[in-house]
Amino acid sequence: MQKSRSSLGTLLHHVHVSGPLSRAELAARMGVNRSTILALTSDLAGAGLVREERPVGTLGAGRPSLVVRPESERICVLAFDIAVDRLTAARVGLGGPVLDRREAARPRAGVDLETVIGKLAVLGRELVDTAPPGTTWVGIGASYCGMIRPGDGMVRYGPELGWVDQAFGAELERALGMGLPVAVGNEAHLGAMAEYARGAGAGFPNLIYLHGDVGVGGGILVGGELLGGEGGYGCEVGHMLVNPFGGRPCLCGSRGCLEAETGEYALLAEAGRTGLVGRDAGGAGLIGRDAVRAVAEDAAGGDPAAVRAVATIGDWLGIGVANLINLFNPGVVIFGGMLRDLYGAAAPQIAARIAQHAMPVSRERVELRLSGLADDTTLIGAAELGFAALLADPLAFPCSRT
Amino acid sequence: MQKSRSSLGTLLHHVHVSGPLSRAELAARMGVNRSTILALTSDLAGAGLVREERPVGTLGAGRPSLVVRPESERICVLAFDIAVDRLTAARVGLGGPVLDRREAARPRAGVDLETVIGKLAVLGRELVDTAPPGTTWVGIGASYCGMIRPGDGMVRYGPELGWVDQAFGAELERALGMGLPVAVGNEAHLGAMAEYARGAGAGFPNLIYLHGDVGVGGGILVGGELLGGEGGYGCEVGHMLVNPFGGRPCLCGSRGCLEAETGEYALLAEAGRTGLVGRDAGGAGLIGRDAVRAVAEDAAGGDPAAVRAVATIGDWLGIGVANLINLFNPGVVIFGGMLRDLYGAAAPQIAARIAQHAMPVSRERVELRLSGLADDTTLIGAAELGFAALLADPLAFPCSRT
Repeated sequence: MQKSRSSLGTLLHHVHVSGPLSRAELAARMGVNRSTILALTSDLAGAGLVREERPVGTLGAGRPSLVVRPESERICVLAFDIAVDRLTAARVGLGGPVLDRREAARPRAGVDLETVIGKLAVLGRELVDTAPPGTTWVGIGASYCGMIRPGDGMVRYGPELGWVDQAFGAELERALGMGLPVAVGNEAHLGAMAEYARGAGAGFPNLIYLHGDVGVGGGILVGGELLGGEGGYGCEVGHMLVNPFGGRPCLCGSRGCLEAETGEYALLAEAGRTGLVGRDAGGAGLIGRDAVRAVAEDAAGGDPAAVRAVATIGDWLGIGVANLINLFNPGVVIFGGMLRDLYGAAAPQIAARIAQHAMPVSRERVELRLSGLADDTTLIGAAELGFAALLADPLAFPCSRT
Repeated sequence: MQKSRSSLGTLLHHVHVSGPLSRAELAARMGVNRSTILALTSDLAGAGLVREERPVGTLGAGRPSLVVRPESERICVLAFDIAVDRLTAARVGLGGPVLDRREAARPRAGVDLETVIGKLAVLGRELVDTAPPGTTWVGIGASYCGMIRPGDGMVRYGPELGWVDQAFGAELERALGMGLPVAVGNEAHLGAMAEYARGAGAGFPNLIYLHGDVGVGGGILVGGELLGGEGGYGCEVGHMLVNPFGGRPCLCGSRGCLEAETGEYALLAEAGRTGLVGRDAGGAGLIGRDAVRAVAEDAAGGDPAAVRAVATIGDWLGIGVANLINLFNPGVVIFGGMLRDLYGAAAPQIAARIAQHAMPVSRERVELRLSGLADDTTLIGAAELGFAALLADPLAFPCSRT
């Protein structure tokens, strides 16, 4: 193999995903000899992206292979997560560590583009201003709970804010003014990539990631690639019609969609915790993940309404999962966001529906798992998106030093 | 580009799919110069796979570019289509023409592997025995209406015959005794590939092919590749649960599956033509495609029961299609088998459900089409499978001369 941009990126990708690796391990993984690894590492070290060091605990042990370590403290991206009730910004280092983070509450409705961009820019600037001297910013990624046009980060449809064709990516880029492009992706798409790269989906190229909050999104990998379809808008599992007879109203305007039957509002309504009607439900004044967790905990404690709610919502989720198993013959289905909590409580209902509706041949190899990155799945996905340009061409990336 | 097995296969693939092409057209399509085309063509002609000739209608026109033409009459595959009520075998030439064919009725139920293999072998031997002298058989492909294990053609599940784990491919290979492997695929998978290669799906790498008879199968291409999933069993659209409340019983043992609500039995039952109860329905003694066409025609003529049946079944099919559009953001959805006839009659119901349930962004580019290869879609798909080894490595294929 020649020393090329592509092999530089491959080496960097290995240490980004796996952490420090010896030259010997890298040579074995890449199928090249150690002198090639030496040359590649030398270029990457010269660019300040990795450093070589003796592995810990090898003092006096002859001539240990040096390990190649990503410069996680210095090479960073800004990652944003625009979720249903909170905005998160983080400084994430090469190799994946979340080095610093800021959060802000987000009103659930009636928020315009300018307001959201303004809040995100404040969080982002704080992270930039407080980053250690010498930090090099190599990218910006953002996860958004809506349908995103690939390429320019246009929000084609953001149901719970009612956004249609809002130039989110371009506006965030302008507001941050860091001279770096902002890459935007759908939260569940990015979640799928993150779980595949460093979460519960590692080693599963045929992967379904389901992300729930108010909406339910999907990120589906087919042979290791995100299912984009014609315009990049594939994977809309949330609007699969599961209840064709008077199902719950959905934010999309239809009724009986998977997300209408299994999202946060459905769970809280079914549990009788809709005191604040729809958008700010929660019997104990709770909304969002806290409210969902409270229902799951109460169900575990035997509260009849909570038990019933979890069983009903889990049953609908099981139908959706069975349909997806038939369609995709996946190796793993991963539950993230509030579905992580719901799955924990409703696993029997989900398993029963899979047994009833998924073909035996289609489900014989599938595993059901909770997200491995917990509440940070989509944020980490945004960070991975931010690192993509660097990993594609490590010596020619745009960057911004502070 | 070097002259390689791969570029030989690429050139052969071009003339196989597009028919005779001039050296100039081939050079442009493959991005190589004409001397490379000359060398490749020379090798392929030496192997008897193509011939060069002056194009028709260019007499006296200076020095016309020779056209490269596949040896369609001489280089052939045996293609089998094991459908719900008939068995078809065909001699298909390189380039795709069906040169000869044999059909036999197939009882709908209670047929064991040995009986089906026996009938297919008779049809196949007839085609071999009556083929012109000098015919070179380069492959055998078979389309089966069930779930097929890639690699060895094992029928993992064939619902309407009740087959589970039957060694169909190996047994057909043995019974034919031609010294050629038999490649087997699911009928809708093969239909998708055939429509993409030379049918209504040409130019649509994100394609959904829906094939109906008693069952409803799907073949889904994502970025030009068949969606296989973990074991090759993806695309099982027929068992997507669309009617969760007491839907019609399905051959899979569940109820309310898409195929139970939209297949032949559902249509005939809804039209009141179930005199023979289920497996041999048909008010006028008809079953299969003829019965479906009769209902569609009667609906067009205003027969109330037929109108109602078409509307009801079309409505369920529309739900299924809307769900698939949300999941796959396809460029085209193609209706084949009896769904070709149903779509012709129920297009308004299908369009209405798509408008109601598919996200505007997901459906903005989708086209709905009838299969371009009519009733031969799955047979042509089987032939394409039979040609695959030749196209992968044109100078090293196994063959059988008669």
